[in-house]
Amino acid sequence: MDDRPIGVFDSGIGGLTAVKELIRLLPHEDIIYFGDTGRVPYGTRGNETILKYARQDTDFLLSQNVKLVTAACGTASSVLPGSFAEECGVPFTGVIVPAAQAACATTRTGVIGVIGTPATIKNRAYGKAIRNIDPSVTVIGNPCPLFVPLVENGYTEKDNPVIRMVAEEYLAPFAGTGMDTLILGCTHYPLLKGVIREILGDEVTLVDPGAETARYVANLLTGRRLLSSRHTPGTLRFYVSDSTENFSENAGRFLQRNITEAVERIELG
Amino acid sequence: MDDRPIGVFDSGIGGLTAVKELIRLLPHEDIIYFGDTGRVPYGTRGNETILKYARQDTDFLLSQNVKLVTAACGTASSVLPGSFAEECGVPFTGVIVPAAQAACATTRTGVIGVIGTPATIKNRAYGKAIRNIDPSVTVIGNPCPLFVPLVENGYTEKDNPVIRMVAEEYLAPFAGTGMDTLILGCTHYPLLKGVIREILGDEVTLVDPGAETARYVANLLTGRRLLSSRHTPGTLRFYVSDSTENFSENAGRFLQRNITEAVERIELG
Repeated sequence: MDDRPIGVFDSGIGGLTAVKELIRLLPHEDIIYFGDTGRVPYGTRGNETILKYARQDTDFLLSQNVKLVTAACGTASSVLPGSFAEECGVPFTGVIVPAAQAACATTRTGVIGVIGTPATIKNRAYGKAIRNIDPSVTVIGNPCPLFVPLVENGYTEKDNPVIRMVAEEYLAPFAGTGMDTLILGCTHYPLLKGVIREILGDEVTLVDPGAETARYVANLLTGRRLLSSRHTPGTLRFYVSDSTENFSENAGRFLQRNITEAVERIELG
Repeated sequence: MDDRPIGVFDSGIGGLTAVKELIRLLPHEDIIYFGDTGRVPYGTRGNETILKYARQDTDFLLSQNVKLVTAACGTASSVLPGSFAEECGVPFTGVIVPAAQAACATTRTGVIGVIGTPATIKNRAYGKAIRNIDPSVTVIGNPCPLFVPLVENGYTEKDNPVIRMVAEEYLAPFAGTGMDTLILGCTHYPLLKGVIREILGDEVTLVDPGAETARYVANLLTGRRLLSSRHTPGTLRFYVSDSTENFSENAGRFLQRNITEAVERIELG
């Protein structure tokens, strides 16, 4: 048993897709979330910069005495080295392996698509993880640089003509490839599930890395006997590097609860 | 006479619209540019964060022994306090006053439009500057949160259907207002002049704050006898907070010269 909180970080609000599922699966766990809203987006920056930011995010969570760190950010996960878990001193997971496992378990055609930020696609992190699991799978990636700014600015409704046009452009390369499984390789993208599903149809399974990672964390904590001993609802605390106002509103809407009192601004680095 | 370089900063590449005009007007001046590409965009963040970043950007330029600091960034300019010039210890200008002066000199109908980042529009900085010059002018502002990500990702061609649709949405509120002058209140926006002009027609004068600020700087240095004594072409140096690769390519294309050798990555803060 371990009553310390679970630590989760992301460049902005995208990692809340993991938090939502963690709350559902592990209602007694305390969760500390850090959203680097003062420096979002990560996915259009260079690897050196992303790595520096991810290390600072992790250091902040470790300073909060967490029992596990989750990089609930596709971009940060694609850049962090394999040795990063050792550096942490506590169990660590990114979103790549959990999502790759889920996609490999799902595909029937053996063709998996990956959409992500330019950095994630360039780093080929999902492709490497998938081929580690099943070398026979074909992986097709396409970067979607505008999806994060669109989500962070609230362009998520499937009837919005701008998001519809941008999504059609980004998904066009997958037509006729035989892809039956698409990894939404950035934790912001599940907020665009509606529009993506309308363009691709119901035959393509959409893999949500945030939700898959939450399941992975639940299994890991259970397996290592690190679950909380409490039977009362866990607490949520949120830290951000920009003003709390925007975050409280958007995150509260997404999690369907008022979190204003639980959000604090911090200075990193 | 003062042979020290002119310092210019922006959140990313937008401030190059000022640099381009500075090179044309003052070909013998050395220019040092800092683009905070590791933290762009500024305009969707809170004032406290923007102010912190703008101060760090300025401190870096001052550490390079510049004779003048230009905040070639609408968002930073809208947040910096009136007392900032004193803090600098060298002449300082943002883009707000130069652009407001140009707009007031241009308008015949007395209705000036302003587009800018959410922070710039919320801070009403252009409106205040314009009313200081001419209280009878009507100012109409509209925020354009997606323009900076679109420009930073290369969506600038007027035939691009995405930028066209987003621009039509952002410019719709100005229809029927009698506006004859529009301030492109963020130094990224002049890269979208083509599409904006096509939507608004030739009757509306577009004011480019970067270019106006370059003229303002030229007048200021001339008036205070701070021009360089040299008669050889000035040098350009660029510093960025993210990888140099992307910046060199985009900035080089915009300035129509190869600047790869002149770009260096630095760590701020």
